[in-house]
Amino acid sequence: MAARQEQPYPHRDTLSKATGAERFSTDVAPPECLFAGARRAGVPCARILAVRTDEARAVPGVVAVLTRADVPGSNRQGIVHKDQPVLAGERVRHAGDAVALVVAESREALALALPLVRVELEPLPGVFDPLQALDPKAPPVHPGREEGNLLSHGLVEKGDARAALSGCEVVVEGEFATPMQDHAFLEPANGTARTTRDGGIEMVVSTQAPFRDRFEIAHALGLDPMRVRVRAPYLGGGFGGKDGATVQCLLALAALKAGGRWVRMCLSREENFLSGYKRHGARMRLRLGAARDGRLVALDSVMHLDSGPYAHLGTEIMALALEHAGGPYDIPHARAEGFCVYTNNPVGGAFRGFGVAQASFALERMLDALAERLSLDPARLRLKNALRTGGTNSAGVAVESPTGAAQCLEALMAHPAWQGREEWKRAAPAFKRRGVGISACCNAMGYGRGLPDAAAAKLELTRAGTFRIYNSVPDMGQGNAAAFVQIAAQALDQEISAFELVEPDTRLCLPAGSSSASRSTYTFGNALLRACASMRAKLAARASLVLLADEPARLRLAPGAVVDDATGRFVPLSMIGSMLQRDDRICVDQFVMPVVQDPPKTGEEFRLGFPHRFFSHGACVCAVEADELTGQVELKECVTAVECGRVLNAQGVERQVQGAAAQGVGFGLMEDLCLEDGRMRAGDLTTYLVPTARDLPDLECHVVDGDEPSGPYGLKGMGEVGIHGPAPAIAGAVQDAVGLCVDSIPVEPERVLQALRENRKRVLP
Amino acid sequence: MAARQEQPYPHRDTLSKATGAERFSTDVAPPECLFAGARRAGVPCARILAVRTDEARAVPGVVAVLTRADVPGSNRQGIVHKDQPVLAGERVRHAGDAVALVVAESREALALALPLVRVELEPLPGVFDPLQALDPKAPPVHPGREEGNLLSHGLVEKGDARAALSGCEVVVEGEFATPMQDHAFLEPANGTARTTRDGGIEMVVSTQAPFRDRFEIAHALGLDPMRVRVRAPYLGGGFGGKDGATVQCLLALAALKAGGRWVRMCLSREENFLSGYKRHGARMRLRLGAARDGRLVALDSVMHLDSGPYAHLGTEIMALALEHAGGPYDIPHARAEGFCVYTNNPVGGAFRGFGVAQASFALERMLDALAERLSLDPARLRLKNALRTGGTNSAGVAVESPTGAAQCLEALMAHPAWQGREEWKRAAPAFKRRGVGISACCNAMGYGRGLPDAAAAKLELTRAGTFRIYNSVPDMGQGNAAAFVQIAAQALDQEISAFELVEPDTRLCLPAGSSSASRSTYTFGNALLRACASMRAKLAARASLVLLADEPARLRLAPGAVVDDATGRFVPLSMIGSMLQRDDRICVDQFVMPVVQDPPKTGEEFRLGFPHRFFSHGACVCAVEADELTGQVELKECVTAVECGRVLNAQGVERQVQGAAAQGVGFGLMEDLCLEDGRMRAGDLTTYLVPTARDLPDLECHVVDGDEPSGPYGLKGMGEVGIHGPAPAIAGAVQDAVGLCVDSIPVEPERVLQALRENRKRVLP
Repeated sequence: MAARQEQPYPHRDTLSKATGAERFSTDVAPPECLFAGARRAGVPCARILAVRTDEARAVPGVVAVLTRADVPGSNRQGIVHKDQPVLAGERVRHAGDAVALVVAESREALALALPLVRVELEPLPGVFDPLQALDPKAPPVHPGREEGNLLSHGLVEKGDARAALSGCEVVVEGEFATPMQDHAFLEPANGTARTTRDGGIEMVVSTQAPFRDRFEIAHALGLDPMRVRVRAPYLGGGFGGKDGATVQCLLALAALKAGGRWVRMCLSREENFLSGYKRHGARMRLRLGAARDGRLVALDSVMHLDSGPYAHLGTEIMALALEHAGGPYDIPHARAEGFCVYTNNPVGGAFRGFGVAQASFALERMLDALAERLSLDPARLRLKNALRTGGTNSAGVAVESPTGAAQCLEALMAHPAWQGREEWKRAAPAFKRRGVGISACCNAMGYGRGLPDAAAAKLELTRAGTFRIYNSVPDMGQGNAAAFVQIAAQALDQEISAFELVEPDTRLCLPAGSSSASRSTYTFGNALLRACASMRAKLAARASLVLLADEPARLRLAPGAVVDDATGRFVPLSMIGSMLQRDDRICVDQFVMPVVQDPPKTGEEFRLGFPHRFFSHGACVCAVEADELTGQVELKECVTAVECGRVLNAQGVERQVQGAAAQGVGFGLMEDLCLEDGRMRAGDLTTYLVPTARDLPDLECHVVDGDEPSGPYGLKGMGEVGIHGPAPAIAGAVQDAVGLCVDSIPVEPERVLQALRENRKRVLP
Repeated sequence: MAARQEQPYPHRDTLSKATGAERFSTDVAPPECLFAGARRAGVPCARILAVRTDEARAVPGVVAVLTRADVPGSNRQGIVHKDQPVLAGERVRHAGDAVALVVAESREALALALPLVRVELEPLPGVFDPLQALDPKAPPVHPGREEGNLLSHGLVEKGDARAALSGCEVVVEGEFATPMQDHAFLEPANGTARTTRDGGIEMVVSTQAPFRDRFEIAHALGLDPMRVRVRAPYLGGGFGGKDGATVQCLLALAALKAGGRWVRMCLSREENFLSGYKRHGARMRLRLGAARDGRLVALDSVMHLDSGPYAHLGTEIMALALEHAGGPYDIPHARAEGFCVYTNNPVGGAFRGFGVAQASFALERMLDALAERLSLDPARLRLKNALRTGGTNSAGVAVESPTGAAQCLEALMAHPAWQGREEWKRAAPAFKRRGVGISACCNAMGYGRGLPDAAAAKLELTRAGTFRIYNSVPDMGQGNAAAFVQIAAQALDQEISAFELVEPDTRLCLPAGSSSASRSTYTFGNALLRACASMRAKLAARASLVLLADEPARLRLAPGAVVDDATGRFVPLSMIGSMLQRDDRICVDQFVMPVVQDPPKTGEEFRLGFPHRFFSHGACVCAVEADELTGQVELKECVTAVECGRVLNAQGVERQVQGAAAQGVGFGLMEDLCLEDGRMRAGDLTTYLVPTARDLPDLECHVVDGDEPSGPYGLKGMGEVGIHGPAPAIAGAVQDAVGLCVDSIPVEPERVLQALRENRKRVLP
């Protein structure tokens, strides 16, 4: 059945969020609950000599002060590689490491007690640069580790890039750096938990992966994962920053010591900055070779990712970065090598774009350099090399699905922002310089090979004849919850109002993976569609008994009823609901995302998540105005085109693209943790500036037609692709405006000013 | 997947039944339960003047004596047409009518009280012959009924039989009668019930249709059917006699007056004979026309069925009889007209064969007559006219499925019993005459058009990793329960021991229709196969998460585990069972039997159950020896061939055919209720003689290859087809032996003796 609702369709949670009625995890405040808080190390690298808790314990209202010795299990957390302690015992590896956990009767007692935990530290030399960290003489982040500070290495190769480069008519080279980025979600990491009578844990938490949390908690604390119940209300943002344990293990530990009482743990904004994951800082060196006509021939790239002190998903993020090293382009020879490296910086982890944002920035800058070298239009250069169905991406994977990089570029090339750019630049007011840049990108969907990207959906016909969708993929704002209702409503020909959505809950809902990797609507949506098909068949079969219709396939599902058009008779769904026992009112089905068949013989170091089969595509035009007096760059126009299969809800797609673009603008233009030797000088939202409505123009979004046959109603995931365009397009625009070769972001006014002063364009080699 | 188990395979309930460990409904005896019994009218037709209960009530231990006035609901029962009172109030319509119900603390008190219920009756003239009952002057069974004693009329026509007959080269005619037959199941109708706290009824009862019972009880007594719970353990036989309410409504009524205590009601053998349904007595008149070479041209048949005083399934049984009037033969012109008629005889109702046994007897006798008239071999005559795929049956339905009448006949024609018959007959000992007869037949499967033949199957993966099948199609001895386990075991590649079968229970199991109409293994089996496919997909998908196998389709289900052959790793089912929540351990699916597309424009009076799409086929050779001195006929050999699609369990098929053949032998040779004006002179098992092991030769069974693509593993239902062969084959054999034209059954020694004395063969016209 085709999607019918390509028109704007309001998310069902819009009103409840706008009015404040929606209950986020942070709104959960059981009466008489306890409060837990962590004492953080505050220094990036040290030996822990002692943690003295007596004074803190003596504070009235303090229930417990816990240290490493109080952790009953492995004390280790981590999504794949479990190297992060819940409470650090011997060594501090970054400033956000928790060394003690206090549980108290009140927030006030907690605030009094935390500074009274006396932590004796012996400062150690740290390492804060991923390239320096690979020096054998660099201080080891994990002493005794054979590989030193190298967390992982990866190589993705197609053809023979180095040989091909030596024969290229033109070769450009560059070195690039992208910074760590904070997710800056509105709702800090938080949760509420208590122990249950069966010796387990019950938790309400702001998380992107409730089912995985069970295993994290159980492994760290020595519990039975089946006895850990995790509920995940709507999140006030996540962006990858809640994909993996934040407060979960600390909170569960606190609950274990709370005698069955509820315990709340909510990070302050500062603590969230200090302890939360960041987008990996990256250093990249690229050589790109082409024919004189602009046809790309070979790419050689090396990337260093700064993982901070723990693995989190560093290896998997690097795999995706290397897989996307060649972007949405058909490059015959490509080599991408990567090093993911431990440092004493903040922890690198999942972030919308997942390694692609970094690789994409570097590659797009190289294309600009190549365009300049060959005096080609940067858009035409990209279009000429755009990967099309039947081509092979730079990881060696043949593109079988409909793919829309070229269409996105064509859409933007026809847009006034691009068409009229010279005229617009000439109209720059006094003391302003204007420039326009363009970029293209792609972003994989799903976990990739080696890690089944699966979801199980549960759909219930209620006794009243309405439907209940049990979804366990949290909605962190991207709108998948609303999409699920829309998908089911279309699949069952029912009104939206006939649906109720059960919030993710490991006891009620079924495992459906994490809310991440642009996968949730595609994967759970497909599982849900199958459950809907089962429900449809069931309803027809059960109604056929009432209607004495011996060919159930001829019955039609209509809002609230099963109808026999041959006779005009119908059975209300409420009658069917009241007739069936509970087991018969439930349909469960599942879906596992198809993977690449015959994967290329490369990337063998990557056990999980390489390569991918499905990609969404995008392109972006940014127009900037640089102030000659201050160096300040103002984004005047930002137009994004995306191809993400068929569109189920145009408004939903537009909002996702706008949100991603805003975050991409922040990445390219503003956001800076001001890291210095492992310490962030910008550690809250008054110093770490994210774009606000006043910093942004209208973020225009164009969706080009697409259709992914394997997708629910033809859709693909698109929660990430929109983030990649702005940073390189802004960089290109700034270069266009003031001649600054932007090889690192964010674009700093100081550098713009300096470039203006030098009054010349620095040309890339 | 193909069936692998065509070899004998013992039913799982064999041992428990042989040792007496199996608990039938009649074994349910809760402590301190009450006992209920009905006072039956004992006369076939009367006006009820009064039912005086004072004396009965005064018996110590009597809890209640109930009459018509105590029935809270409609007081009407009946599967389709609800015309049978639970307790007769104004009129007695047959001798088994219940006029009062006594509930007592003990069997003794019950036995004392029942005769003390004083029933004042005014005898009325009754009607006991279905042809006479149609006389407008006949006493009405249901006074005031516009149609008089005609319950229903039906006409099934193909071509123009009467015109065609007038042009036939040869026409034979005959009139036939078949008697009422008692099911004579071992376990009489019985059950145990109590009221529940929610105002409902809980009942354990010997029934073929637990889900339908809920509606019967609820309608009769004014209850909510969803609050009636019916459990159906293995039956000690049913054969159609427990398809419809027996004790159900009376027992539920007793429970309503028992204050929450359990009440038992178990009919005595005599009461079961008196009140139980019987196979409809039939009177048939046929004219069969053929070409001189034996090719059948036209059949004109008229049938009168004796419904007794209530409809039960009379109309539907007549529909099946008329549909089968032309048997498994291709007859260009066929007309079958039927009248189902009320009388004051015992109630006619469902019985294995369901109208087909009657029609089949008459038609086969006509074929013998035609063979004799044309001096043709009776087997060759049948084979010449056997219906084949691509032909059209006498109801005008094109035969699309593989069909095996010819193969059955060929198998028997090659059998020594037929090949060597002349030699065997010549070897008859002194004072014995020998004869051999042959017959062919077919029997529809399923409810037929107009009544969805549906089943829902529920399959559970237990926490321990075994499987639980929730089946609601009772097993009355035919072995469907064992077949379901075998089907699921094959479908899931598990050992038989990994399965547990939940007995039919309307609270735990899902509606799957009745155990009747040769449908149960086909329909529930198909639903179960679908549930197994869901389970298989679920297990692979869930295991893929543990094995990190991103292509679940490549995982293999093995006994107790899901295996990844690529790596040799596996996940025990016990691990999956312990991981999943209950809703995820259950698979439900359903199946609705396909129906005839483009049904012929005939049989329009039949709203339900006409026509059918699938048929099983059979043929039978019987060899008899008649005693010249006593007229006694001894069956010396009985060979049945059947075609019923693919065979799942050869032993199960053989046992079903043997059981059916034995019942067919009883029908043809022995069983006689000795009805006289509505009263049975033979009303127990010492007077109503059914064949015992001493009366029967080995009942040989040959199964010819078949394959029904829509069936589970290619099978078709075959619980009934084996019953039709013996009666006409015995009749033919007796005629062959002693020259008696057997136009009615059972074959009485008196008539054989008389024929021997007349010493001549009476030739059919």
